[in-house]
Amino acid sequence: MGLKVYGHRMSQPARAVYIFCKMNGIEFEEISVNFFTKKTASPVFQEINPMKQVPAIVHGTFKLFESHAILRYLACAFPGVPDHWYPADLQKRAKIDSVLDWHHLNLRHGALRLVQAVALAPKLGRQPNPQVAIEAEKLLSESLEKIETFWLQGSGPFLLGNSEPSIADLSLVCEIMQLEVLDDKDIDRILGPHKKVQQWMEDTKTATKPHFEEIHGVLFEVKAELQKQRLLGANNA
Amino acid sequence: MGLKVYGHRMSQPARAVYIFCKMNGIEFEEISVNFFTKKTASPVFQEINPMKQVPAIVHGTFKLFESHAILRYLACAFPGVPDHWYPADLQKRAKIDSVLDWHHLNLRHGALRLVQAVALAPKLGRQPNPQVAIEAEKLLSESLEKIETFWLQGSGPFLLGNSEPSIADLSLVCEIMQLEVLDDKDIDRILGPHKKVQQWMEDTKTATKPHFEEIHGVLFEVKAELQKQRLLGANNA
Repeated sequence: MGLKVYGHRMSQPARAVYIFCKMNGIEFEEISVNFFTKKTASPVFQEINPMKQVPAIVHGTFKLFESHAILRYLACAFPGVPDHWYPADLQKRAKIDSVLDWHHLNLRHGALRLVQAVALAPKLGRQPNPQVAIEAEKLLSESLEKIETFWLQGSGPFLLGNSEPSIADLSLVCEIMQLEVLDDKDIDRILGPHKKVQQWMEDTKTATKPHFEEIHGVLFEVKAELQKQRLLGANNA
Repeated sequence: MGLKVYGHRMSQPARAVYIFCKMNGIEFEEISVNFFTKKTASPVFQEINPMKQVPAIVHGTFKLFESHAILRYLACAFPGVPDHWYPADLQKRAKIDSVLDWHHLNLRHGALRLVQAVALAPKLGRQPNPQVAIEAEKLLSESLEKIETFWLQGSGPFLLGNSEPSIADLSLVCEIMQLEVLDDKDIDRILGPHKKVQQWMEDTKTATKPHFEEIHGVLFEVKAELQKQRLLGANNA
């Protein structure tokens, strides 16, 4: 039964799904749906996901969207996925669900709004919005502080003190990675105070190489392009 | 192994957990943590949930927060919970996860911000915020439209066309119920256009009686109190 993943490598939840599949030898067809050019609003894609967002999957005739639901499903539906990604043990699983649910209105909401209000506004056809950026950075910094002081408590290098990564590590680290498109001084200001977060990101990259770097290639290209534009803008000013 | 549920009957996700337990004969100790008086910020409660939010549970020595994670856990950890609440079938379960994940940044974000910006602002020690209210109502109305036209597609009366309610129905209907504290004309404007949503709410109430009405009793008391204050304010003006 074939698996199609509709996504885009500039979408952080789509990247998490791609990396998960590659890490676990799950074969899939990668179908790029460009949200910058509003391909997510096309009638064809709305048949897959009426919410007009990536990622979405089609597995045989089964359609599914929302990246956390997809990651949970793939971890259970494909044989041979190591237990640490989404443990069968009810209490271990519930803790990972708790991180994933917390993520939406905290880290995700902060990081996504900040990046869209600042760096990606022109690409999305919007004006940069400084007021939204201020509120979003506040939520983002509070969320990073919670990761630093609570979710990364414990002896292991991963969330919840685990010794191996789960789908929550993948989802949250991919989310933070989008900050790469900001100016380097902004990244330093936001991530600088959070040493454990930085180490955890490195550990997650290491645990998922070479797929992590490969899937993030497009993000690094966009980062370089935006950095060039900022330099040009500064020189012109 | 005893179950303690830390919550408050004015918290919509806490109400969903209470109703779920009562519907499924899960015995629990209800421990009220009043977020209006900032009891969620007490050191004792932060030992349970450092995010300072209700609901949270303690099951034996196992602590858990985030209502969707709690509902998933309870549905699996307690024997005898009927399958329709959170099906064992992977694809049926994934669809329910998809609704639950979608909920956070859509219906929940819209409804919660609207109610806090308008009706509950004084109780929370804040000024009403008309700009937030406008943005929140827009997101709320779009979310209700998605429920009406997409999530309630299908032959059964519940989300995803199911013939019996799931934890997603309980979570989403409890969320919408908080609109009761708004002025009746605002409720009519927001819910009026969504006939299928209204019918689904009635069906969910019927499927979970008498617990639904009992657990919402405090909300109806607050509604009456706020309505009285509005009338007094109008008369004084």
